[in-house]
Amino acid sequence: MANETVDIAIIGAGISGVYSAWRLKQAHPGKKIVVFESSDHVGGRLLSVQPPDIPNMVAELGGMRILPAVQPLITALIAELNQSLPPHEQIETYPFPVDQDQNLAYLRGVYLRLSDFTSQPDKVPYQLSFLDRGATAGSIILNAIEQIVPGITAPDLTEEQRRTMAQEASFGGLPLYQQGFWNVLLRVIDSEAYQLGVDAGGYNSTLSNWNAADAIPWYLSDFGIDPQYKGFCKGFQQVPKSIAALFQHAGGEIRLNATASRLKWENEVFEFAVEGKVIRAHQLILAMPRRAIDLLAATSPILQEIQRLTSSVTPRPLFKLFTTYNNPWWRAAGYTNSDNVYVPVQAGRSVTDLPVRQTYYWPQSDGQPAESGRAMLLASYDDGTNTGFWDGLRPQRHQLKRSGQEVAALADPFVGEATASQTESTWHQYKAPRLMVAEVARQLGTMHGLNYTPEVRNAAFRDWGDDPFGGGWNSWNIGVKSWEVKKQIIKPLDICQLYICGEAYSDAQGWVEGALQTAEMMLKRMAY
Amino acid sequence: MANETVDIAIIGAGISGVYSAWRLKQAHPGKKIVVFESSDHVGGRLLSVQPPDIPNMVAELGGMRILPAVQPLITALIAELNQSLPPHEQIETYPFPVDQDQNLAYLRGVYLRLSDFTSQPDKVPYQLSFLDRGATAGSIILNAIEQIVPGITAPDLTEEQRRTMAQEASFGGLPLYQQGFWNVLLRVIDSEAYQLGVDAGGYNSTLSNWNAADAIPWYLSDFGIDPQYKGFCKGFQQVPKSIAALFQHAGGEIRLNATASRLKWENEVFEFAVEGKVIRAHQLILAMPRRAIDLLAATSPILQEIQRLTSSVTPRPLFKLFTTYNNPWWRAAGYTNSDNVYVPVQAGRSVTDLPVRQTYYWPQSDGQPAESGRAMLLASYDDGTNTGFWDGLRPQRHQLKRSGQEVAALADPFVGEATASQTESTWHQYKAPRLMVAEVARQLGTMHGLNYTPEVRNAAFRDWGDDPFGGGWNSWNIGVKSWEVKKQIIKPLDICQLYICGEAYSDAQGWVEGALQTAEMMLKRMAY
Repeated sequence: MANETVDIAIIGAGISGVYSAWRLKQAHPGKKIVVFESSDHVGGRLLSVQPPDIPNMVAELGGMRILPAVQPLITALIAELNQSLPPHEQIETYPFPVDQDQNLAYLRGVYLRLSDFTSQPDKVPYQLSFLDRGATAGSIILNAIEQIVPGITAPDLTEEQRRTMAQEASFGGLPLYQQGFWNVLLRVIDSEAYQLGVDAGGYNSTLSNWNAADAIPWYLSDFGIDPQYKGFCKGFQQVPKSIAALFQHAGGEIRLNATASRLKWENEVFEFAVEGKVIRAHQLILAMPRRAIDLLAATSPILQEIQRLTSSVTPRPLFKLFTTYNNPWWRAAGYTNSDNVYVPVQAGRSVTDLPVRQTYYWPQSDGQPAESGRAMLLASYDDGTNTGFWDGLRPQRHQLKRSGQEVAALADPFVGEATASQTESTWHQYKAPRLMVAEVARQLGTMHGLNYTPEVRNAAFRDWGDDPFGGGWNSWNIGVKSWEVKKQIIKPLDICQLYICGEAYSDAQGWVEGALQTAEMMLKRMAY
Repeated sequence: MANETVDIAIIGAGISGVYSAWRLKQAHPGKKIVVFESSDHVGGRLLSVQPPDIPNMVAELGGMRILPAVQPLITALIAELNQSLPPHEQIETYPFPVDQDQNLAYLRGVYLRLSDFTSQPDKVPYQLSFLDRGATAGSIILNAIEQIVPGITAPDLTEEQRRTMAQEASFGGLPLYQQGFWNVLLRVIDSEAYQLGVDAGGYNSTLSNWNAADAIPWYLSDFGIDPQYKGFCKGFQQVPKSIAALFQHAGGEIRLNATASRLKWENEVFEFAVEGKVIRAHQLILAMPRRAIDLLAATSPILQEIQRLTSSVTPRPLFKLFTTYNNPWWRAAGYTNSDNVYVPVQAGRSVTDLPVRQTYYWPQSDGQPAESGRAMLLASYDDGTNTGFWDGLRPQRHQLKRSGQEVAALADPFVGEATASQTESTWHQYKAPRLMVAEVARQLGTMHGLNYTPEVRNAAFRDWGDDPFGGGWNSWNIGVKSWEVKKQIIKPLDICQLYICGEAYSDAQGWVEGALQTAEMMLKRMAY
């Protein structure tokens, strides 16, 4: 086998991989730095694709937003990138709305608007205690958290202060990090309040049994105190793509369709195989989530040694399905308010306990809602057991993939309206099966109270539970001191310069901020 | 390493392993037949333990019942065993009740009795359609199944006829075996009816997305048409123990604490390692569920070749927690009926959507309910996501186990009322953590509407999701033709006499009947 030696090898071209590569190349222009990526593109779980029929929208099959107020690293990075990027390639964001008064909550067979939770508590089909009646799902969980760690919801605390409080907290006589979030929540709220939190919150896994000392500050940042999200005009994948371009411009190399295996440390050098070639490296960065590390570990004894660290998190599936239409039919689901003004449903999201769970009325690239003409939905955004529902409607899951393709070809795809030239687009690599589209259309009809099923033009989906990702995000396991593991895992072994980074082992799991946080910690440790 | 050669090696001393060993020894008295078992006892997922304080009850931490009307193999086996067993060792059964009118269903914060589903449908807190109102959860699912495969619920059909109908059925233009049970159920009933089926049915995984062509006949046998269960006076583990004794009496050998690894086929013979020794065998039976095969496959390339077959099922967690008391306090949860007679809650089960899910009022060894004095509950019997709730209350899960012990020692066990001599009993190997007992006591209080928490004397639990089992039962994956895989997997390779049996790859998954069914098929194939 042919050999090649590099100074620094980075496996994984997601955001943490290309960011680390770029910083290292800036610091060491003369070093040979190569990123190896098993798929055919840069970006990992940032995957922005253009729907074939709507030029002014971008479907975010992966990560879709940031929280500038609590995410300084990604915010500063965008500003820095924009200084290097020409005017037409500037990274621009728009306010990304979530909950709107007029939007729907179809729960337990009852049609509610989000405003009904506070204004018409009798309509809410949950047996809530006197204290919880008239509260939103979010405020019920916030109040519960305040009971578990008194003081932690005070708005003037920093992120760091909240994390420290949670790490040092005890509940019921036991350190909080030794307890599960679900377990402690059920101690302070009853099962109906908890269920409303899950159902109306839109997610199954965020309130599930992960490390309570991590879950609480994480929940407070992400969902807690009036979060202000931003979306990306040209798609979030523009960020890693821009970084990759700068890295390559500086002389760095990114190799696509390059799957690494059989990693070992021998004679003071790393060795691994990539497509029939042996790569040797002095320093090695695994910019990968847990599942990808597990897959590599199957052929790499050195990674089996650090399983105590890598197995301290659990990958959590996330599923996203986008559908396009001839018109934004959901606007008709609005209502006439007390001023006799019609308020359409056109932005943010609706929720349901059907497997669809969350539907986002997707904005145009300028952040404005689509008011007429072709329009798009993030028809379903769900996690936990609901991903198993959609899994049954994609028989290709366990089939072999074409080399370089992230997903297998479909036996029975939904045939959309795209022209021949459009079917060459990236969107069509991720197109949805016929049965999945029929089912999502049926459920969207139900949750919007329609007597007809709006016709879908095109549909694309991504289940991040698929290998090599294993999940859309990762959560710290109960009993783990994440604040210690987080420091150890960036350089898990004394004997060699192996480094690990990515959202999986961060304080902001599932967020680009978490990926950058661990990348920064790692780079400092490398003394770059 | 020392070597040893045997004629037939069997790995796994669960019911399918010891049964096969016994039959083979009967047919070939001169052959050296050895069963290797990694734990310190015979029985696998049949695990009957004596509570320290109640001599006339047996806790079934594993399988607990049979359905004689549709399970001819186990029924005939018991009769056959009883012919060889002395009078005081006879295997005796009692009627095992499940749903009783007066028992409770605490769902969505509402207290119901099971009879309320039909007699007081307005109390049932689910938005049911006109057709489903006034029906029990079981009859809603039965009716749904009849819509999916018309005619299949006719009571005069045999098990075999139902299976054939389901295998040949199409639904919505697609073969049923290519579809998920959850997916097809939601096509014929709405989400509220489905949710009632899950919540009041007591199980999360039975109605989940597994192969619909297998799930439907399985559901009809197990839950469908007025099932009549039988429990075991001395515990179900008596069956494999009796078989093991007969096998040993005939000259067969069972080696406990004997974990097999590094299996290979070389020079026309199997070789594997057991506790530092190399065992050679001409014929090899893996009497193991999928997860145990996966664990062995990690060091056994020959098993990696058959992963297409072994991976055709999914292990499903099951959790059981028993608690004992000074008196059967649950009898007070009964009601006074229209004849002015007090009907206590004392037999069968109650259900709830709390993580407890199902509570069985455990019978005495004679099958009669405990009416006074010390008494026992199967406090929680649950599966699916609910096992994750209890998982958070047992921090020892990922700790190392003592050799020969199935479960790790507890850092913080519930300290019960047992005397010093009683703490040596098997029960105490499976004792529950303090936090788990406190939580189950709290939830039992809630679901029974108590203002106090009855004091627990002793508690034991088992989560069958733990290695090496991976699950309490296994379910066929969507898209698999189980009727073909079932035949192939009993002898998966042409080149060697490797055999596989157990409930995992049967028509009666999760039942001893399924284990015996595949064992019988395998024995026929071996032409024993």
